[in-house]
Amino acid sequence: MPVSYTPPIRDMQFVLHELLHATDTLRALPAHAEVDVDTVNAILEEGGKFAAGVVLPLNLPGDAQGCRLDRDTHAVTTPDGFADAYRQYVEGGWPSLSCDPEHGGQGLPHTLNQCFYEMLNSAGQAWTMYPGLSHGAYEALHAHGTEAQKKLYLPRLTSGEWTGTMCLTEPHCGTDLGLLRTKAEPVGDGTYRITGQKIFISAGEHDMAANIIHLVLARLPDAPAGSKGISLFVVPKFHASADGTLGERNAIHCAALEHKMGIHGNSTCQMVLDGAIGTLVGEPHKGLAAMFVMMNAARLGVGCQSLGLTEVAYQNAVAYAKDRIQMRALTGPKAPDQAADPILVHPDVRKMLLTARAFAEGGRALLCHTALRLDVALASDDEDEKQSAADEVALLTPIVKAFLTDNGWLATSHCQQVFGGHGYIHEWGMEQFVRDARINMIYEGTNTIQSLDLLGRKVLLDNGKKLKALGKTVQEFIEDAGIREDMQEFVNPLADLGDKVSKLTMEIGMKAMGNPDEVGAAAVDYLRVVGHLVFAYLWARMAQVALDRQAAGDTDPFYTAKLHTARFYFARLLPETASLIRSARSGSGALMAMDAALF
Amino acid sequence: MPVSYTPPIRDMQFVLHELLHATDTLRALPAHAEVDVDTVNAILEEGGKFAAGVVLPLNLPGDAQGCRLDRDTHAVTTPDGFADAYRQYVEGGWPSLSCDPEHGGQGLPHTLNQCFYEMLNSAGQAWTMYPGLSHGAYEALHAHGTEAQKKLYLPRLTSGEWTGTMCLTEPHCGTDLGLLRTKAEPVGDGTYRITGQKIFISAGEHDMAANIIHLVLARLPDAPAGSKGISLFVVPKFHASADGTLGERNAIHCAALEHKMGIHGNSTCQMVLDGAIGTLVGEPHKGLAAMFVMMNAARLGVGCQSLGLTEVAYQNAVAYAKDRIQMRALTGPKAPDQAADPILVHPDVRKMLLTARAFAEGGRALLCHTALRLDVALASDDEDEKQSAADEVALLTPIVKAFLTDNGWLATSHCQQVFGGHGYIHEWGMEQFVRDARINMIYEGTNTIQSLDLLGRKVLLDNGKKLKALGKTVQEFIEDAGIREDMQEFVNPLADLGDKVSKLTMEIGMKAMGNPDEVGAAAVDYLRVVGHLVFAYLWARMAQVALDRQAAGDTDPFYTAKLHTARFYFARLLPETASLIRSARSGSGALMAMDAALF
Repeated sequence: MPVSYTPPIRDMQFVLHELLHATDTLRALPAHAEVDVDTVNAILEEGGKFAAGVVLPLNLPGDAQGCRLDRDTHAVTTPDGFADAYRQYVEGGWPSLSCDPEHGGQGLPHTLNQCFYEMLNSAGQAWTMYPGLSHGAYEALHAHGTEAQKKLYLPRLTSGEWTGTMCLTEPHCGTDLGLLRTKAEPVGDGTYRITGQKIFISAGEHDMAANIIHLVLARLPDAPAGSKGISLFVVPKFHASADGTLGERNAIHCAALEHKMGIHGNSTCQMVLDGAIGTLVGEPHKGLAAMFVMMNAARLGVGCQSLGLTEVAYQNAVAYAKDRIQMRALTGPKAPDQAADPILVHPDVRKMLLTARAFAEGGRALLCHTALRLDVALASDDEDEKQSAADEVALLTPIVKAFLTDNGWLATSHCQQVFGGHGYIHEWGMEQFVRDARINMIYEGTNTIQSLDLLGRKVLLDNGKKLKALGKTVQEFIEDAGIREDMQEFVNPLADLGDKVSKLTMEIGMKAMGNPDEVGAAAVDYLRVVGHLVFAYLWARMAQVALDRQAAGDTDPFYTAKLHTARFYFARLLPETASLIRSARSGSGALMAMDAALF
Repeated sequence: MPVSYTPPIRDMQFVLHELLHATDTLRALPAHAEVDVDTVNAILEEGGKFAAGVVLPLNLPGDAQGCRLDRDTHAVTTPDGFADAYRQYVEGGWPSLSCDPEHGGQGLPHTLNQCFYEMLNSAGQAWTMYPGLSHGAYEALHAHGTEAQKKLYLPRLTSGEWTGTMCLTEPHCGTDLGLLRTKAEPVGDGTYRITGQKIFISAGEHDMAANIIHLVLARLPDAPAGSKGISLFVVPKFHASADGTLGERNAIHCAALEHKMGIHGNSTCQMVLDGAIGTLVGEPHKGLAAMFVMMNAARLGVGCQSLGLTEVAYQNAVAYAKDRIQMRALTGPKAPDQAADPILVHPDVRKMLLTARAFAEGGRALLCHTALRLDVALASDDEDEKQSAADEVALLTPIVKAFLTDNGWLATSHCQQVFGGHGYIHEWGMEQFVRDARINMIYEGTNTIQSLDLLGRKVLLDNGKKLKALGKTVQEFIEDAGIREDMQEFVNPLADLGDKVSKLTMEIGMKAMGNPDEVGAAAVDYLRVVGHLVFAYLWARMAQVALDRQAAGDTDPFYTAKLHTARFYFARLLPETASLIRSARSGSGALMAMDAALF
């Protein structure tokens, strides 16, 4: 049984059109005034065909084959078919979907690009990272590049003719970029000579595009120590004249490929800069701020990777659970004509599947909601609306990154478990999803860092302003829906959790004033609690849509399934908050008391 | 920084001598009357040297190299050094440690062998499976073999000259062995001609021993359908005369090696039996019962594998967390002379490490306790004591298997996370622990099957008799320790959880009478709750020992660390039971309501 994937178009349409009414929101933005439901649906359809038809077949063989480095030429060969799929991707115009029309983009909303990327990630995370990384470089140059940089790079990143990377990490520093050592010395002609070593550079070298545009963090000679002395440079693999004609090879090359747990099809490179020539992006010493433009988009992208893996793992585990016969149902034979029942009859198999399903559908709702708010934040002409949308995106970004990737790890592992021993075997594809999903909890800021970003920076630093705004939205929904008898089962636990989050936030805030370690001790549990609050809110809203459709006489079984999954979420997944809150409240004492020497 | 491992001798001694007073228990058994503390300690020391010195260096390269099959000769070559390490293992007399002296064994207690195997598993699970599988074959033949079978096979399995396998699974049946199709036809001379295909046969073919003794499940021509028509056969790779001289090659061979997520150093074989000649073990059609002798021991062995991985992952993550500098402590610089603080200052890094530590130390206590009860069950001359020990082992076996392997998956993943991006890179060794740990939740009965075994068979089927016996032991401890002020922090949550387990068990039992799916819906959560009850009991007892030593003036920091870890367990890990109980109580409705077609 080969790995299969059916793009979840129906559920995306449910989220976009029935839950979020996304086109209404988008059309109120001048940049997206012409977006309509038909355009959205057509792009979802075509995007899904590309993902399932072109990318999916490469995923399993690409994992087995991996990338190869020629140590003499420093050239990297990607797995068979990867470059050809990328060619088709470029020819189809996919790279330009949400790019700025000023530089050749189609100017479509991020919300749509997000749905497309979910499907690409389901079909193959390793392949999708090649075009995916370009977006980060595009965003940083779009926001901070000089006119000349924009004119040279943006149209070619937009078309996909060239790809981009982010070169941040060094062997001794990942989380703590303040420690980085790569040096940039002014040549005197406005360019800089950059020397250093970067590691973990995804898509750092490959055979899929004519040029690779590296965004590199480095220190100027007069740079202050620490994170306030870091500048951002653009360093192309090949120099290019203003018209884009490629010139000499720049002194940046791939010295080695990392041997990784997963995403074997992506080239994770150790990059050596040996006096490579680059130009400054943005202000000197302000590189970290410029880089965070890329990082925030990338963090949403990582959540999207795990969403994609969760969905494809779920689909394949369901197919297996319907096909595989083993034992009888505890309540007696369900398929008496066969030697045993399909394993879907067993409650715990269903529990594992429904966990993945609820995480996938909840994650899709959360990501689409966040992307829509991002579109508003970027394109609204109302400053208040712009700011409140940006605030909500800022609050939700660490949740999307950490909550969805932790969920993706659990879900892919559950789906692997459904396959029994076959789940451990490469050819069935499930163990690859687990291995691929594992990196998402680590890169673009570990999930611990996300939790500190949420609790420390996004919640406590502004005295809970952003959280209260979200709470107000939730509260309004509770008040509206709370008068409906058929919504009690969803609204009551949501309201209860909302109260608990308020109390927990205040409690940690108070304790943190006396001891900053209280933030670090509670943050990871806290993020999952708030993640569940957002999920519970979205699941209650989805249930309401389904109930309304049923009340209106719609017999589409889609709504029946949506309600079952919502009830499962509230019965089986939301209760995790009980433990998380107890653990978060237990404080830092039990963690900090032990002397380092005793570990 | 290469992967390192220091055998946790001190903690093993604490568990064996200070917590369990194992030699007192053992010396009361006629077979172990001469076991003393010095012997135990000497074997732990020597065993630890073998594991860390001989096995550990092979683990990472063995994973990268894997096993190779010659498709012409069907010969399997194990990774470089594996066969030589096995030779040293045999020369050191290690295979015979807990084997019957009647067949050349040293007759030492299982408890000691269990500690030795923990160290082997820390050093390399893939290598350790080669000798480990022999134990299962040994046990089945020891319990059910004819005199001739025993005489031929047991001395050579005991010496390690030959190894053994368990051939159960077929492509279409793993959990449900009643479906198996391999056929055994009587030749007429007391032997059988066996034909069929087996998959997932660990150590099924290799270059480490002169002969491989396969224990094979198959159907006789007159066999009833289902699980009551399965017989057990012994099928040697090479025929051998009664004196052990090897003769012709038998018609059983390795047709392919599986490509797995982990344990790459172990040969997981597809075995083809093409009229292979074997002899019956035990009664016709009673093969499954005979096989369960092996399975129960193997399940404890799988728990031990995850314990080993948890311990070695913890040690390496601690070393990294002390060495790696990144960011400052939230409470201000702790290593002002360095550019950043060691990451061990961060609360969540400590939380991940302490989780692994509490799982390792709790798991060690549980496994040693269970192994000691197994020694009593096997060697006591008091029938009541024998039975009550056997009952407790029966109850604890699924908990050891599922709870420790789920914990091992969490713990190795946490330890990988401590390494940040380096955790995803093969050379650092951490991702291998995660991949290796993953199989332990699947094989020897998936963890779902373990949970059904616990709740359905071990608890509900005898109206809670075995569980009540354990509860009585816990209750007696609570009454004794509960009068001590310094034990309140441990005894109170233990007593509370004990009450909750009683209520939960009764509630599920009542519901299950009306609907058997209630068992399947609650079982996985239930097993983890009971796992925590056992852990809380053992952690409280360990804390008491540490408090007593401190009260007696002992200033060994070992006891300080033990108390910190106990407090961490109660503050941060035990609270998981709050969610588990809510989830378990939510019933089967949310799982079973959705039509299969809607998945």
